[in-house]
Amino acid sequence: MQFNLEAITEIALGIGLQLLVIIAAYLIINPIGRKIISRVLHSSTKKQKISEARVLTLEKLLLNIYSYVLIFIFITMIFGVFELEIGPLIASAGVVGLAIGFGAQGLVSDVVTGFFILLEKQIEVGEYVTTAGYDGIVEELGLRTTQIRSFDGTLNYIPNRHLEGISNHSRGTMRALVDIGISYNDNIDHAMHVLQTVCDNFSIDERFVDGPQVIGVQSLGSSDVVLRVIGQTQNMEQWGCERDMRKAIKEAFDRNGIEIPFPQQVTHLIKEKS
Amino acid sequence: MQFNLEAITEIALGIGLQLLVIIAAYLIINPIGRKIISRVLHSSTKKQKISEARVLTLEKLLLNIYSYVLIFIFITMIFGVFELEIGPLIASAGVVGLAIGFGAQGLVSDVVTGFFILLEKQIEVGEYVTTAGYDGIVEELGLRTTQIRSFDGTLNYIPNRHLEGISNHSRGTMRALVDIGISYNDNIDHAMHVLQTVCDNFSIDERFVDGPQVIGVQSLGSSDVVLRVIGQTQNMEQWGCERDMRKAIKEAFDRNGIEIPFPQQVTHLIKEKS
Amino acid sequence: MQFNLEAITEIALGIGLQLLVIIAAYLIINPIGRKIISRVLHSSTKKQKISEARVLTLEKLLLNIYSYVLIFIFITMIFGVFELEIGPLIASAGVVGLAIGFGAQGLVSDVVTGFFILLEKQIEVGEYVTTAGYDGIVEELGLRTTQIRSFDGTLNYIPNRHLEGISNHSRGTMRALVDIGISYNDNIDHAMHVLQTVCDNFSIDERFVDGPQVIGVQSLGSSDVVLRVIGQTQNMEQWGCERDMRKAIKEAFDRNGIEIPFPQQVTHLIKEKS
Amino acid sequence: MQFNLEAITEIALGIGLQLLVIIAAYLIINPIGRKIISRVLHSSTKKQKISEARVLTLEKLLLNIYSYVLIFIFITMIFGVFELEIGPLIASAGVVGLAIGFGAQGLVSDVVTGFFILLEKQIEVGEYVTTAGYDGIVEELGLRTTQIRSFDGTLNYIPNRHLEGISNHSRGTMRALVDIGISYNDNIDHAMHVLQTVCDNFSIDERFVDGPQVIGVQSLGSSDVVLRVIGQTQNMEQWGCERDMRKAIKEAFDRNGIEIPFPQQVTHLIKEKS
Amino acid sequence: MQFNLEAITEIALGIGLQLLVIIAAYLIINPIGRKIISRVLHSSTKKQKISEARVLTLEKLLLNIYSYVLIFIFITMIFGVFELEIGPLIASAGVVGLAIGFGAQGLVSDVVTGFFILLEKQIEVGEYVTTAGYDGIVEELGLRTTQIRSFDGTLNYIPNRHLEGISNHSRGTMRALVDIGISYNDNIDHAMHVLQTVCDNFSIDERFVDGPQVIGVQSLGSSDVVLRVIGQTQNMEQWGCERDMRKAIKEAFDRNGIEIPFPQQVTHLIKEKS
Amino acid sequence: MQFNLEAITEIALGIGLQLLVIIAAYLIINPIGRKIISRVLHSSTKKQKISEARVLTLEKLLLNIYSYVLIFIFITMIFGVFELEIGPLIASAGVVGLAIGFGAQGLVSDVVTGFFILLEKQIEVGEYVTTAGYDGIVEELGLRTTQIRSFDGTLNYIPNRHLEGISNHSRGTMRALVDIGISYNDNIDHAMHVLQTVCDNFSIDERFVDGPQVIGVQSLGSSDVVLRVIGQTQNMEQWGCERDMRKAIKEAFDRNGIEIPFPQQVTHLIKEKS
Amino acid sequence: MQFNLEAITEIALGIGLQLLVIIAAYLIINPIGRKIISRVLHSSTKKQKISEARVLTLEKLLLNIYSYVLIFIFITMIFGVFELEIGPLIASAGVVGLAIGFGAQGLVSDVVTGFFILLEKQIEVGEYVTTAGYDGIVEELGLRTTQIRSFDGTLNYIPNRHLEGISNHSRGTMRALVDIGISYNDNIDHAMHVLQTVCDNFSIDERFVDGPQVIGVQSLGSSDVVLRVIGQTQNMEQWGCERDMRKAIKEAFDRNGIEIPFPQQVTHLIKEKS
Repeated sequence: MQFNLEAITEIALGIGLQLLVIIAAYLIINPIGRKIISRVLHSSTKKQKISEARVLTLEKLLLNIYSYVLIFIFITMIFGVFELEIGPLIASAGVVGLAIGFGAQGLVSDVVTGFFILLEKQIEVGEYVTTAGYDGIVEELGLRTTQIRSFDGTLNYIPNRHLEGISNHSRGTMRALVDIGISYNDNIDHAMHVLQTVCDNFSIDERFVDGPQVIGVQSLGSSDVVLRVIGQTQNMEQWGCERDMRKAIKEAFDRNGIEIPFPQQVTHLIKEKS
Repeated sequence: MQFNLEAITEIALGIGLQLLVIIAAYLIINPIGRKIISRVLHSSTKKQKISEARVLTLEKLLLNIYSYVLIFIFITMIFGVFELEIGPLIASAGVVGLAIGFGAQGLVSDVVTGFFILLEKQIEVGEYVTTAGYDGIVEELGLRTTQIRSFDGTLNYIPNRHLEGISNHSRGTMRALVDIGISYNDNIDHAMHVLQTVCDNFSIDERFVDGPQVIGVQSLGSSDVVLRVIGQTQNMEQWGCERDMRKAIKEAFDRNGIEIPFPQQVTHLIKEKS
Repeated sequence: MQFNLEAITEIALGIGLQLLVIIAAYLIINPIGRKIISRVLHSSTKKQKISEARVLTLEKLLLNIYSYVLIFIFITMIFGVFELEIGPLIASAGVVGLAIGFGAQGLVSDVVTGFFILLEKQIEVGEYVTTAGYDGIVEELGLRTTQIRSFDGTLNYIPNRHLEGISNHSRGTMRALVDIGISYNDNIDHAMHVLQTVCDNFSIDERFVDGPQVIGVQSLGSSDVVLRVIGQTQNMEQWGCERDMRKAIKEAFDRNGIEIPFPQQVTHLIKEKS
Repeated sequence: MQFNLEAITEIALGIGLQLLVIIAAYLIINPIGRKIISRVLHSSTKKQKISEARVLTLEKLLLNIYSYVLIFIFITMIFGVFELEIGPLIASAGVVGLAIGFGAQGLVSDVVTGFFILLEKQIEVGEYVTTAGYDGIVEELGLRTTQIRSFDGTLNYIPNRHLEGISNHSRGTMRALVDIGISYNDNIDHAMHVLQTVCDNFSIDERFVDGPQVIGVQSLGSSDVVLRVIGQTQNMEQWGCERDMRKAIKEAFDRNGIEIPFPQQVTHLIKEKS
Repeated sequence: MQFNLEAITEIALGIGLQLLVIIAAYLIINPIGRKIISRVLHSSTKKQKISEARVLTLEKLLLNIYSYVLIFIFITMIFGVFELEIGPLIASAGVVGLAIGFGAQGLVSDVVTGFFILLEKQIEVGEYVTTAGYDGIVEELGLRTTQIRSFDGTLNYIPNRHLEGISNHSRGTMRALVDIGISYNDNIDHAMHVLQTVCDNFSIDERFVDGPQVIGVQSLGSSDVVLRVIGQTQNMEQWGCERDMRKAIKEAFDRNGIEIPFPQQVTHLIKEKS
Repeated sequence: MQFNLEAITEIALGIGLQLLVIIAAYLIINPIGRKIISRVLHSSTKKQKISEARVLTLEKLLLNIYSYVLIFIFITMIFGVFELEIGPLIASAGVVGLAIGFGAQGLVSDVVTGFFILLEKQIEVGEYVTTAGYDGIVEELGLRTTQIRSFDGTLNYIPNRHLEGISNHSRGTMRALVDIGISYNDNIDHAMHVLQTVCDNFSIDERFVDGPQVIGVQSLGSSDVVLRVIGQTQNMEQWGCERDMRKAIKEAFDRNGIEIPFPQQVTHLIKEKS
Repeated sequence: MQFNLEAITEIALGIGLQLLVIIAAYLIINPIGRKIISRVLHSSTKKQKISEARVLTLEKLLLNIYSYVLIFIFITMIFGVFELEIGPLIASAGVVGLAIGFGAQGLVSDVVTGFFILLEKQIEVGEYVTTAGYDGIVEELGLRTTQIRSFDGTLNYIPNRHLEGISNHSRGTMRALVDIGISYNDNIDHAMHVLQTVCDNFSIDERFVDGPQVIGVQSLGSSDVVLRVIGQTQNMEQWGCERDMRKAIKEAFDRNGIEIPFPQQVTHLIKEKS
């Protein structure tokens, strides 16, 4: 019984060398990766006004994931050096990872969508938006969740992946539109003249960017002839303008004897014997 | 016939060494992993007021999964040492694991969503929320399920993955809104004056954060001119305020002879011979 | 031509050794796995009142799957010992397994959901629940299917994965709510007084946990002023209470000359010549 | 140039041995597998009253698939013995298999669902069920498709995977429910007394399991006070009972001078000058 | 520098042998596979009345796919013989194949569904069916598409995978159903007698399989008492029968002085001063 | 220190040989593949009237993809010859390829669907179709997109995968259908006679393929007895025919004193004291 | 103990050679790949009027991804040279890559759809389109997002993958359509003559491409005979034309004594005793 010392030494040397390479790679790659993650995160979030606290949370999360992945690779490689089968390790990690990945699919989707909403500045805090069935003022923009304050005071938390199409009502002048019905007996030209007079009074209102105009007969309804008035207003002033125009039109019609008709019906009366 | 004892010894030594490394790794990694799971679980749940019992259940579940995975890796590696094919083992485990993983996808999704709802404190026990078509007071927040008590007494169990967007009605002042119709014959200014007087009486009500205001003509309806009153109230006081305002407005209108009109219709009567 | 007996013997010995290890592993792992399955199944179902028959069915199913998987691994390994390619075996099993797995995804999903419904005791036999569009009394809870008896006598079988959110109406006091309209001419205070008197009579009713109260003017309708009465009742007594309250309120209103108005309309009559 | 006959012989012997093992395995496994398929199929379908023809069709299909899979494995293994690359064979089979598997996913899903519907006896031929938007009598239960005959004579073929929740109307007594409106001027107690008398006459009807009862004021409608009568009847007799009760109630009300009111409206008439 | 001719010769011989085996396998498997595809296709389509042209198209498609797959395997194996890496070949083919497979998933799904519709003879050319929101006469049944001719003349092409549940109206007798309202003042027994007389006249009509019967009071409507008449007719005769019955009933009612009432309303008239 | 020139030479020779084979294969396969793509594309599109420009675009796209795949395989194989690890190359390509493949899934689906729509000639340019919620004349058929011109002038671009069921209104005669209500007092036979006379006049109209017929009493409505007239017309003439028939019927009814009744109501008048 | 210098030298040489090849490949492939990306991007976007800034952003993103993939391959290959296990590296990268790929699936889908919308010029900036439930003027076309300005001033951001079918209203003449009801007592021919006269006056209006025409009796409504007028107008002029035609028709009817009727009803009056 003889030990082939030479071969063993050679093998031991090989193992040692490999271990050295692995440990060196770990020591080099670990801090570099951490720095890259931090820097990329900070530089890409600096422009998007994300609060410092949120960035730190995200950074911690990413660094944790990064550490676990690196340690897993490190352990597996050392196993590999001793020529142990690492198939089961990889397979187990893959199955567990995929299972979590499937479940967390929504999370990644949230972050990707959130990133682009921030990048393309689709919405900003304080704007009035409609999206995903919610309607209100944006209170906070996160990478994962957007908070919208409804006008009734409710605070809505919406995962970003549900923001499929965003209607931003705070980007430019808004339209004020009033539809008003007049009787079939009234003269259309007269009514339009009265309406235009009201409109002209409003056109000096600072809230109007483009003075309201009567644009014509919008429809011949079952009980009335509907006329439409349209104007462009300052942002968020459209409702106030519409309310004031409705009041002014009603009063002008009263003064000029133009009727806003109730629903009409023709009844053919047959008296039955009872 | 001669046994090459030397080679066999060498092989046996190699096998023994590998077995030692595997068993050592198992003995080291097993308790460390268990401790990491426990610590991460406790530290990450401490802040979120999750009941101790729930944490223990979750911990037991995770430790069980962890044990099964570890034992599977352990067995497979020992097979690998004896140079047996471990492909079938891994393949079977992978297929079974993926099958379960697909089915349990909803479960992981529940936990991930639940984790973020807790982390971002989107809802807390006792708050009034609307989500996933349910409406009521949150009774319990779990990692997998949220319990909401409807106002009619029903207790709703909702898996967290269905909470796609949460409307939290307990975060700030709420709006009290009353729409009231007046006759086309009534003077709008007079009616708005009466309404504002009612509003002023309410503005000293402690429940109102921002005293109710008449904001104008909301619409020209088919039978009435609709005026709108809006105020900001203490949270959860909005319904009481609205009920009191409706009563007060009705009584003030009665005193001032302002009519809340019934549906109106103009009938053109034609008497047929019968 | 010379047979290298020594090498052949060595190989034969290796093969024999490997076969022995495999057979031993099979003989050890098979009964242990079966016992683990049985024990886990029985211990985890003991608390959830699942019928013995159902547990046996499930056990048999799981043991069958377990046997097939084990036999497949066993055969593949023996092939591996003879250095035959086992790739095709594994690939075929994987493809077939995945195909079945995809199709049976719903089944696993059913069982996982059912397990948590049982574990979290979301519903129990005899409770009145609304879920997945079905409404009725729970007749049986299974791991795969839940049976709900509708009030019209229909028995509904619902796979558990469709139970996305469960409304349990048997967990606490229920609300009795009666909305009642009074005429715009009636005095609101008077009507509320009459209503409160009726409510006070009911508050001594044992079915009421929290005596009914008049809470105010719920809405100003097109034909009536709507008052709301709310009370908390014993579970499942809410409908009886509401029916009795409706009758009592109607009779009290009759006695006090308060009118429950029919739909109202104002008709402006114009006689056309015919 | 010298042929190393010895080595070639050894290799040839090895190849021959492997071929022998493979062929032997094929000859052993093929008939065993076929028998297992047949036996499992017959034993598991014997209890579920599936027609013999259908079982034979299914058996033929399964044996065909089994044969193709086995032959594929057999060919691949022989390739493997000659040390030819079998990767492309496996990869091609995998891709083709997965492509078919994806497309046939619905098929597997049908069979799995159908199997459980049969196993749990959720429906049987001749029962009246509502499922997947179809309503009628079950004509045939298959592993893949269920046939339901609508009451208008239509025969509906529904793949089993669409049976998401089955309402079986043939499992127990059914409810007969009649809602009947009385005038606001009528005395509720008197009307309930008349109704109860009608109910008492029906309680001796054999079709009623639990004699009909007046349960009270179901709602205060816009034109009438709605009273509700409920009874439990033999299965499938509920419609006949309801029709007879409606007729009897109408006639009893006629005899007792209780009015079933038409829609009511109060019209405030204003005569306009024309 | 010396060439080891012996080893090279041996290697060349091995390569030559492998090439021979591969080419032989290709020459044997290619025609066999083509014959199997042709025979399976022809035998399985012979019974389902699929037009010869369609079968030829399908055969050509399948043979093309078969050729490409075989050539790919052939090329890859020859690469393998020269010990070239075939990983990239397989990986590329796999990714491309899966990408196409995903996109063509609907196609496979169409064919599988179509195959079973044909096999189970769920519909045949000329039958009247409702499926996938389309309603009409089947004009052509394909493996991929079904053509349905609507009654308004439109020809609808529907991919088979959208046929989720087929309502076949051409399998058996159909129901003719007429609901008819009578006045609350009319005697129900008298009206039912008149109706039954009309029904008796129809019962000798050849189109009726099961003579129409009056089955009773279907509902107590807001303006009329609704009676229902039901009969079983020859297939596709149900509409004609219903039209004739409606005419006969109307005329019988006229003769017997039974009124089919218009919508009824009670108006409480209050004259306002104007 | 001695260089084993012989072995190195042998290795170098092996590498050279492999490189030669690879380059040769690339040079042979590249032009053949390009020719196959071109020929298949041209032959399969020649019959479907696809514009030459579109085919060229598609060809360029396919040849680009083909080139990139081939170059990738070529590079990887050369790496393989130098015994470098090609795993990372393949894995990276696979992940990137799958990611793109998932995203482009819709694109492949469009092309497959478009191919079959063209192959089965389901629609052609100039036909009037309804599909995917759009309704109009087909302007262009593409492999990826179909353009439909609505009757209001809008041009709709629809990706082919959304064409789930196509209603083609340009394949055969169309139905003209007119429903006409007569008074309950009118004689049905008389009205049907008048209608049939009108129909007979139209039956000589060239637009009618199958002269219009009165088919009977379609329903007993709340205010009128509805009669139905049906005819078969030339394609796209159905609307004109219906318009002309409506006019003719109205005028014939006027001449014959048959009334088309207005909505009817019976009012029971009760005068309240006011 | 003796070092086999020769072998070590050989191995070191081999490693050095491989490292050289890898580094050379990296240095060659890196700049080539970057150039290809830039060139492809610029050439394929030049024709589509995409703003320079957007192209640069996209280029930077692609180059970043390209760098990370290349560096990963580079590192892994160097590990491979030292014969370290690279399995774990690849597996980790694959799992992480797939997880991100799944989440970013929507992003790729956006870009692919956007690319084809640009390539097929389905919409252009300034056009009026309806798509994905949004309606307005296109403000900006991006590879990922399309911006549409609603007529009320709202700016809508829509990810391109939601543009499933685009209705472009700016591609050709538009239809102006006016439906007008006349009394059942009026003569249809006379009314059509008056209408046609109005139409003839409009046919000289420049906005009309194809002068408006009366096309006949569109329907026999419950209260009126509906006539339809259709014309083809310049793009975006359809609403103005319709408004002007409505006004002109109303005035022409007034001049010719043709009535646009109110809703009609026949009331059968029965006076009840009260």
